[in-house]
Amino acid sequence: MQHPTKTPLSDALRRLVGRPVADIDTPALVVDLDAIQRNLGRMAEFARKHNIRWRPHAKMHKSSAIARLQIQAGAVGVCVQKTSEAEAMVAGGVHNVYISNEVTAPAKLARVADLAHAVAAENGQLAIAVDSLEGVRRLADAMNERRRGGAGAVIDVFVEVDVGGGRCGVTPGRAGVQLAHEIRRHPALRFAGLQAYNGKAQHLRTAQERHDAVGIVVQDVLFTRKLIEAEGVPVNLVTGAGTGSLVCEAASGVFGELQAGSFLFMDADYAANERDPAQPQFEHALFIKSQVMSCGVRHAVCDAGHKSHAIDSGLPRVLELPATGALEYFNGGDEHGILRPAGDNQRVPALDDVVWLIPGHCDPTVNLHGFMIGVGGGLEHGKVEKIIRVDARGALT
Amino acid sequence: MQHPTKTPLSDALRRLVGRPVADIDTPALVVDLDAIQRNLGRMAEFARKHNIRWRPHAKMHKSSAIARLQIQAGAVGVCVQKTSEAEAMVAGGVHNVYISNEVTAPAKLARVADLAHAVAAENGQLAIAVDSLEGVRRLADAMNERRRGGAGAVIDVFVEVDVGGGRCGVTPGRAGVQLAHEIRRHPALRFAGLQAYNGKAQHLRTAQERHDAVGIVVQDVLFTRKLIEAEGVPVNLVTGAGTGSLVCEAASGVFGELQAGSFLFMDADYAANERDPAQPQFEHALFIKSQVMSCGVRHAVCDAGHKSHAIDSGLPRVLELPATGALEYFNGGDEHGILRPAGDNQRVPALDDVVWLIPGHCDPTVNLHGFMIGVGGGLEHGKVEKIIRVDARGALT
Repeated sequence: MQHPTKTPLSDALRRLVGRPVADIDTPALVVDLDAIQRNLGRMAEFARKHNIRWRPHAKMHKSSAIARLQIQAGAVGVCVQKTSEAEAMVAGGVHNVYISNEVTAPAKLARVADLAHAVAAENGQLAIAVDSLEGVRRLADAMNERRRGGAGAVIDVFVEVDVGGGRCGVTPGRAGVQLAHEIRRHPALRFAGLQAYNGKAQHLRTAQERHDAVGIVVQDVLFTRKLIEAEGVPVNLVTGAGTGSLVCEAASGVFGELQAGSFLFMDADYAANERDPAQPQFEHALFIKSQVMSCGVRHAVCDAGHKSHAIDSGLPRVLELPATGALEYFNGGDEHGILRPAGDNQRVPALDDVVWLIPGHCDPTVNLHGFMIGVGGGLEHGKVEKIIRVDARGALT
Repeated sequence: MQHPTKTPLSDALRRLVGRPVADIDTPALVVDLDAIQRNLGRMAEFARKHNIRWRPHAKMHKSSAIARLQIQAGAVGVCVQKTSEAEAMVAGGVHNVYISNEVTAPAKLARVADLAHAVAAENGQLAIAVDSLEGVRRLADAMNERRRGGAGAVIDVFVEVDVGGGRCGVTPGRAGVQLAHEIRRHPALRFAGLQAYNGKAQHLRTAQERHDAVGIVVQDVLFTRKLIEAEGVPVNLVTGAGTGSLVCEAASGVFGELQAGSFLFMDADYAANERDPAQPQFEHALFIKSQVMSCGVRHAVCDAGHKSHAIDSGLPRVLELPATGALEYFNGGDEHGILRPAGDNQRVPALDDVVWLIPGHCDPTVNLHGFMIGVGGGLEHGKVEKIIRVDARGALT
């Protein structure tokens, strides 16, 4: 396994457990543990009601501890995008892992085969996506090399269909049939179904636009599934969906598994979507605690810039608190944020004021940090309950 | 010291030293060590010619090993933005460090005072910026607390002037005089001069626009310096400048020290500036090695997205190589990049094709990685010479 060599927990972080929130040095990535539990409960209930499995995406939190929490709450396992993320999950005791992405480099596939055997030894199961004949053959070679002619683990293989993302996946139709047949030719591979995810659909602002986009996803999946099943090959599972569109996939009757990950933390971008009435009311659980370190006449400067939070989906929102009133965050570069009063608020923040930023996008924000500080009892008056390691931080390979 | 608990070097990374570039797993952050040496030579020569000190910004590379290379090449030390970055530099044997930013939280200032004493014991010197009376007093309190009434280290203190950045710093004029006097009241503080940096000026595209912007910077500095010196207080040094504008500051006769950092690696954004004829021809030395892992009819997908490189200053450029021809990189999200042929090139990249991405912005890109892979002998046919730790990765506090 190439990844992960764990960053040790510093003494300062260790000492923080049990201390009040006020003692958290800034900037810091803080998760509201109570809000996480509520979001998990809402997701579990939603999945039960729709009789659908959920396999949340761990590319978002990159933490085996959080993955275990999700599995305790009813998730069947987790998704990841990278081999090294899968390695980090398995090293952290998570044994049902789906690499919902193509892995084609032989050196990486050897690691995938190792992982398939490692989780099988724990009664777990590894799965992966493919979108080319060459990819299937290389995967089979790696699994066979690992088995060395004898029996061994079997890996679940999903055929990815490009359902509008324009990224990976085969064109809906016959290409999927060909891949399903090829998978079934190899004893170490098991054809598990279809991977169908349209990332762009997640961020369409109105519920109707997302509904329409997933309508096309469902048509593409049905078309491909029908062709495969017409040849006597059962398609047991269709897996996909994100936090933006999950109500559509859940209601489709076609999807058997939801991969939504961001619901757990809810970022500013997902919160800016018009909520479908059927969607659970997920709440923000991920924050950057920051503090004012310089004051101008009409603006203040806090100590969190885009080395603290990702800005690919926009700048962070500022949590409105009685102490500071409404504030807007402006780009101050890598290490600073510019704060200005917003709405009716006239008060420019003062030196030492604490602000809580809601990141625009959870996934790359978490990836900037080695640890999340888990708080119970609320952001303002709570206590640090635990330090959560971001096991797969920077797990790129 | 809160930071840094070092991430151990993995066996896989250790084994890479001496291996050909082809063996570097993707995506990976790779530095061209030959290009770095050439860029250092150009900067050293430029500084000698203009009889100006250079103190490159280590917020860019976050590596004490690179800082030591820069000091060997003639730099007087390094700048950093955060206390924890300074801690990482000092832990890595760099003893002349300037925190070119305000630090106002008492818990952080206690660490600053510790650092001031730690570097003094090594015949080094710590410096810091201030922009408020309260900040100066808190800094003095922390230094006095560390000294406990006896003698001890002295910290150099620069008054930051807001010269157009609209972020930190005092308004040009009398506020600077007041701060200089306050600094001189405290025996543990030494008034060292003025900090004057306009980040916005760096990225103005034409040389004339940058020249005009720095013209205003120089006026603001001269005005403030004159007021301070009129009261018999010498202003020994004006420090600032970035890679975009350094020729202007060097020619101003007012600046005594250049803080430019990005020249060492040169990102796509700085390269998009019209080059002032007086500016050394710095070359790209920082790359993401990536590989094609999925192919469509008109596009290919590589394994590097914005968890591999920062996109705050735009998407990466693709290095044009004979094997692939000209390519354009499109946003594929956190883990993927979409590649399409550009210009006259008709060839869609094939599975396994290697591409070298030139990041839009060095600083936050380096911060995404635990290590840089140092290559000698060129990107295509060279060898891995060393693994360079990003000591201050994620050093936010």
